[in-house]
Amino acid sequence: MAAVLRGSLCLVGRCRKHVDFAYVCTRSMASKTQVGFVGLGNMGNPMAKNLLKHGYPVIATDVFPESCKEVQELGAQIVDNPAEVADKADRIITMLPSSPNVIDVYTGPNGILKKVKKGSLLIDSSTIDPSVSKEMAAAAEKLGAVFMDAPVSGGVGAASSGKLTFMVGGVEEEFTAAKELLSCMGANVVYCGQVGTGQAAKICNNMLLAIGMIGTSETMNLGIRLGLDPKLLAKILNMSSGRCWSSDTYNPVPGVMEGVPSGNNYQGGFGTQLMAKDLGLAQNTATNTRTPVPLGSLAHQIYRMMCARGYANKDFSSVFQFLREEEGQ
Amino acid sequence: MAAVLRGSLCLVGRCRKHVDFAYVCTRSMASKTQVGFVGLGNMGNPMAKNLLKHGYPVIATDVFPESCKEVQELGAQIVDNPAEVADKADRIITMLPSSPNVIDVYTGPNGILKKVKKGSLLIDSSTIDPSVSKEMAAAAEKLGAVFMDAPVSGGVGAASSGKLTFMVGGVEEEFTAAKELLSCMGANVVYCGQVGTGQAAKICNNMLLAIGMIGTSETMNLGIRLGLDPKLLAKILNMSSGRCWSSDTYNPVPGVMEGVPSGNNYQGGFGTQLMAKDLGLAQNTATNTRTPVPLGSLAHQIYRMMCARGYANKDFSSVFQFLREEEGQ
Amino acid sequence: MAAVLRGSLCLVGRCRKHVDFAYVCTRSMASKTQVGFVGLGNMGNPMAKNLLKHGYPVIATDVFPESCKEVQELGAQIVDNPAEVADKADRIITMLPSSPNVIDVYTGPNGILKKVKKGSLLIDSSTIDPSVSKEMAAAAEKLGAVFMDAPVSGGVGAASSGKLTFMVGGVEEEFTAAKELLSCMGANVVYCGQVGTGQAAKICNNMLLAIGMIGTSETMNLGIRLGLDPKLLAKILNMSSGRCWSSDTYNPVPGVMEGVPSGNNYQGGFGTQLMAKDLGLAQNTATNTRTPVPLGSLAHQIYRMMCARGYANKDFSSVFQFLREEEGQ
Amino acid sequence: MAAVLRGSLCLVGRCRKHVDFAYVCTRSMASKTQVGFVGLGNMGNPMAKNLLKHGYPVIATDVFPESCKEVQELGAQIVDNPAEVADKADRIITMLPSSPNVIDVYTGPNGILKKVKKGSLLIDSSTIDPSVSKEMAAAAEKLGAVFMDAPVSGGVGAASSGKLTFMVGGVEEEFTAAKELLSCMGANVVYCGQVGTGQAAKICNNMLLAIGMIGTSETMNLGIRLGLDPKLLAKILNMSSGRCWSSDTYNPVPGVMEGVPSGNNYQGGFGTQLMAKDLGLAQNTATNTRTPVPLGSLAHQIYRMMCARGYANKDFSSVFQFLREEEGQ
Repeated sequence: MAAVLRGSLCLVGRCRKHVDFAYVCTRSMASKTQVGFVGLGNMGNPMAKNLLKHGYPVIATDVFPESCKEVQELGAQIVDNPAEVADKADRIITMLPSSPNVIDVYTGPNGILKKVKKGSLLIDSSTIDPSVSKEMAAAAEKLGAVFMDAPVSGGVGAASSGKLTFMVGGVEEEFTAAKELLSCMGANVVYCGQVGTGQAAKICNNMLLAIGMIGTSETMNLGIRLGLDPKLLAKILNMSSGRCWSSDTYNPVPGVMEGVPSGNNYQGGFGTQLMAKDLGLAQNTATNTRTPVPLGSLAHQIYRMMCARGYANKDFSSVFQFLREEEGQ
Repeated sequence: MAAVLRGSLCLVGRCRKHVDFAYVCTRSMASKTQVGFVGLGNMGNPMAKNLLKHGYPVIATDVFPESCKEVQELGAQIVDNPAEVADKADRIITMLPSSPNVIDVYTGPNGILKKVKKGSLLIDSSTIDPSVSKEMAAAAEKLGAVFMDAPVSGGVGAASSGKLTFMVGGVEEEFTAAKELLSCMGANVVYCGQVGTGQAAKICNNMLLAIGMIGTSETMNLGIRLGLDPKLLAKILNMSSGRCWSSDTYNPVPGVMEGVPSGNNYQGGFGTQLMAKDLGLAQNTATNTRTPVPLGSLAHQIYRMMCARGYANKDFSSVFQFLREEEGQ
Repeated sequence: MAAVLRGSLCLVGRCRKHVDFAYVCTRSMASKTQVGFVGLGNMGNPMAKNLLKHGYPVIATDVFPESCKEVQELGAQIVDNPAEVADKADRIITMLPSSPNVIDVYTGPNGILKKVKKGSLLIDSSTIDPSVSKEMAAAAEKLGAVFMDAPVSGGVGAASSGKLTFMVGGVEEEFTAAKELLSCMGANVVYCGQVGTGQAAKICNNMLLAIGMIGTSETMNLGIRLGLDPKLLAKILNMSSGRCWSSDTYNPVPGVMEGVPSGNNYQGGFGTQLMAKDLGLAQNTATNTRTPVPLGSLAHQIYRMMCARGYANKDFSSVFQFLREEEGQ
Repeated sequence: MAAVLRGSLCLVGRCRKHVDFAYVCTRSMASKTQVGFVGLGNMGNPMAKNLLKHGYPVIATDVFPESCKEVQELGAQIVDNPAEVADKADRIITMLPSSPNVIDVYTGPNGILKKVKKGSLLIDSSTIDPSVSKEMAAAAEKLGAVFMDAPVSGGVGAASSGKLTFMVGGVEEEFTAAKELLSCMGANVVYCGQVGTGQAAKICNNMLLAIGMIGTSETMNLGIRLGLDPKLLAKILNMSSGRCWSSDTYNPVPGVMEGVPSGNNYQGGFGTQLMAKDLGLAQNTATNTRTPVPLGSLAHQIYRMMCARGYANKDFSSVFQFLREEEGQ
């Protein structure tokens, strides 16, 4: 029954200038109707390209006109602002740097909600404070639209190859519709629960990731100084209870693994500054929910200190370098 | 006679291409000659039993006579002190609670080194400060004996089932001889490098383990308070970069996994007090080698605070309970 | 009319030696005109009483009617909501528990700004996020009113005896007018700079206070366990570079000083929960300004863990008790 | 002869009601007999000079011959090693960098205890692990000598001007004799209790000092970034509960105070490396006594990270610079 209603909803939501009935009826059928995209940065750009590649007409915008060029050349229609995107598309994906940008893109004077259509599906893939996601969802709901949070894990590489993981929060009935679009850009699309839980899952994962990375760096550094061979130590940890993603998949010590930033002077990968930002979100949500996160909090401070000392743009595994004795000391 | 054979052994053992009669009497053949065992506590007891099970005559001692009963009934010969063990056996395993005990058992008035024979192989499976292992090795070497450190991972269960992992440090030429004995008690015997590196590997692993466990507990607690289902969150972490042994094998949240202490009110497993002790060792070695270990250090402090607040004998995954809001608050 | 007077005030207020008729109508003369007060909790109550004591007619409101009783009996006029207070008074003091309350009291449907008069002086003594103070000031300014932040240090006792310290942020020209009112309730009124700096100073002080208190508790506990007499250790610290307010004025160890909560089972004083709240604000502002505060952050986490373990309502010096070994261990 | 006098002294010194001729020859009379001094480094040098200045014949030694020159020119007699010092003087002061040096100088092959005379008074002013002090005291006692620990606070300047503070642990009956000598080099000589408590007091003070300094640096940095004037913020803290020695006497922010290292590019003062060493001692004693010191532990780690990043030789107040955003970021 919900499906039927949703069908009706779609009808209204998408019957712009009348397409035929069947076409209008379900989003999954409507897969070739336009998809809006706001935010064409390092991540948004390859994501929008993957939508185009899957045959979706894309209507996009970005505050920096030069960011729009590439997708425009690939066939996307560029408009002036988020409100215009909402005027032309009833499924919109947003990918923005931080909470204030999201607030502005949705609720600002030229924001999506100024022209959003009833029944629209708004998917925000930014990593932001879950309480902001909830606010946006409430504001969208008042206008008859559905807002879902769907932050990603995986970096620019995964965005390009369409291998992102999406963690999705929002009304469960809309998950199938969201998944259809997100599957064009990601290999995993996981439903997490009510709105905000996508952000929660993302933030939780990254907090534990940061703890694991710093912990691995400290441990490898200590072991090396105690006379252990780094490769051997990594092997021992990885067959024991010290094993973690940072030790077995993304080892921070140069020479232990190939194809990771530690082997390339910590270039590429996931920047320290971005990790510091995510840890700031984790800290904020922990503070707001009065949850003690002692190691998460210290991890945040360490990445913050690293930013202050010139590591902002290095991969977050460079904490190994930060902790290691400077040469010549 | 054993001493003579040992002498031959050492000679040949270090000159492997030279095989003669003496070789026949080497340790691999001599496997039915006596093995000494000092320290019959929770871990030492099942370890000694496994030696007996493999057909080794065992000569053992412990400061607590009642600890000796069980292995005596199984055929071990009990003597008064470590010196007497050394008088009768040229391969000795020690399993003791802490550095001072090891110092006493080796160098005390009734210590092993008082009567150790030239060519003896002394294997210490205690978890202690690697610098103490080095001291013991130096003292043994002066008397013509070989000391190796071989701390274990795996608890009482692994000790009983002979599934321990041994991390071995010491002269590489003696590793084969050590492995022969240790294989009776463990499933993995890993050579780590010079003396002390077994301890180093053990300490490093447990430091990273503690960081991962507290990090997992913080993360799970935060996620739950943000509205995520604990099982779902664990699943998401385990398929993402937050994955670690504590999240996928020993999850600290009651109800997420079966067969782990969190499902049994944190009974059994690896006690908080023991983890605090290992973290103290990690801290000491880090301090002595002037290595920064910020998360390892905070993990130590958290387990120390838990001991002060009544968690000493609970499994170390009870940090989840420690961080979670008390009911009724 | 008030608006006109306000105009005069400003003029004269900036031309102190020039006293004429207009002056008579200024705030300093107008001291017997009504003062609004919103928030009659543990702190607001005695503060409002002190205004009454100094002869100011008070118009007050609180969400809990029973909180209004006492000041009503002392002559204050009670109205239904903040908007009505603003309708009747052009100088208003607010004293509320947290940022959301302040946002609601100022900008909510029955908020002060709904009926605020041009030229009104709005002084918020709540301890909140400085960025919220700035927002309130901007909103007030649009309506021609002046908003200042003036959080206090000193607890309920200082509020009763009129000995609070006010840290004031806002337009410097209005400081004199603010000081006139605040002096009825406090012994020190310090001008800190632009709007929000009052909060900043308060937050900074309390962060350093928390660090000093935990640090003193750790240090005293360590010293006692190393065999030092607590009074002697306090004396040595206080004549040395370890000296701080927590060691020389508010020592957390029972028996070292008289008249402090440590001598009274940590009752009274400044609750752990309140300290945790202030540290949460410090953490938020630090995160927002990307400032590393490692010890401040850990202090926050420790007070948060204490709240989770049943210390929420004890004085914040009870961290000594939290860190000390439980008896019987 | 000195030995004889010392013998008399001890007799009388411990039998206070029995005053006779021998008493006249006690240490206070014997003040012009020789004093031994081992360790003529940055601190030992000016200390020995002050003894000479007060008329004491000094017999000294140091592992670096060039360190002996200056005091030799001022009249001190230089001998080859600590044992020879002990052969010629029955009151000896030692001032050494760390625990291993102290162990060697007392118990090594050419150590003091090889030739120490019965009744000798041995005062160690090094900052070391209190458990080492206890070991030395026990070893000295077996030979009929008295060992006291008397670490100092105050740096090279205070050593030169004779304004050090000595914190003394040991047998109370010998405190008067120790004080007589120490008063030539220090302004305060405080009796702390049994042997080791002098070290405990020193370590405790420096741990709290480090916490206060980092806390002050974080707080000042945060306040400045929130728009507060540094001098004003320092003033507010110093009149409030955030006050501490680091905020009111040794402020780490350039320009806030004069005559402190922050005003001189953090040159001079108390080096980060030395603070890290003292915090390592605090950490070790806390670990050994199973005392939780979360902030002390993190302070240690921060100073350790600073050493790794090139701050080893800057004054410990340079933590302000370490935490502050690098210019150009």
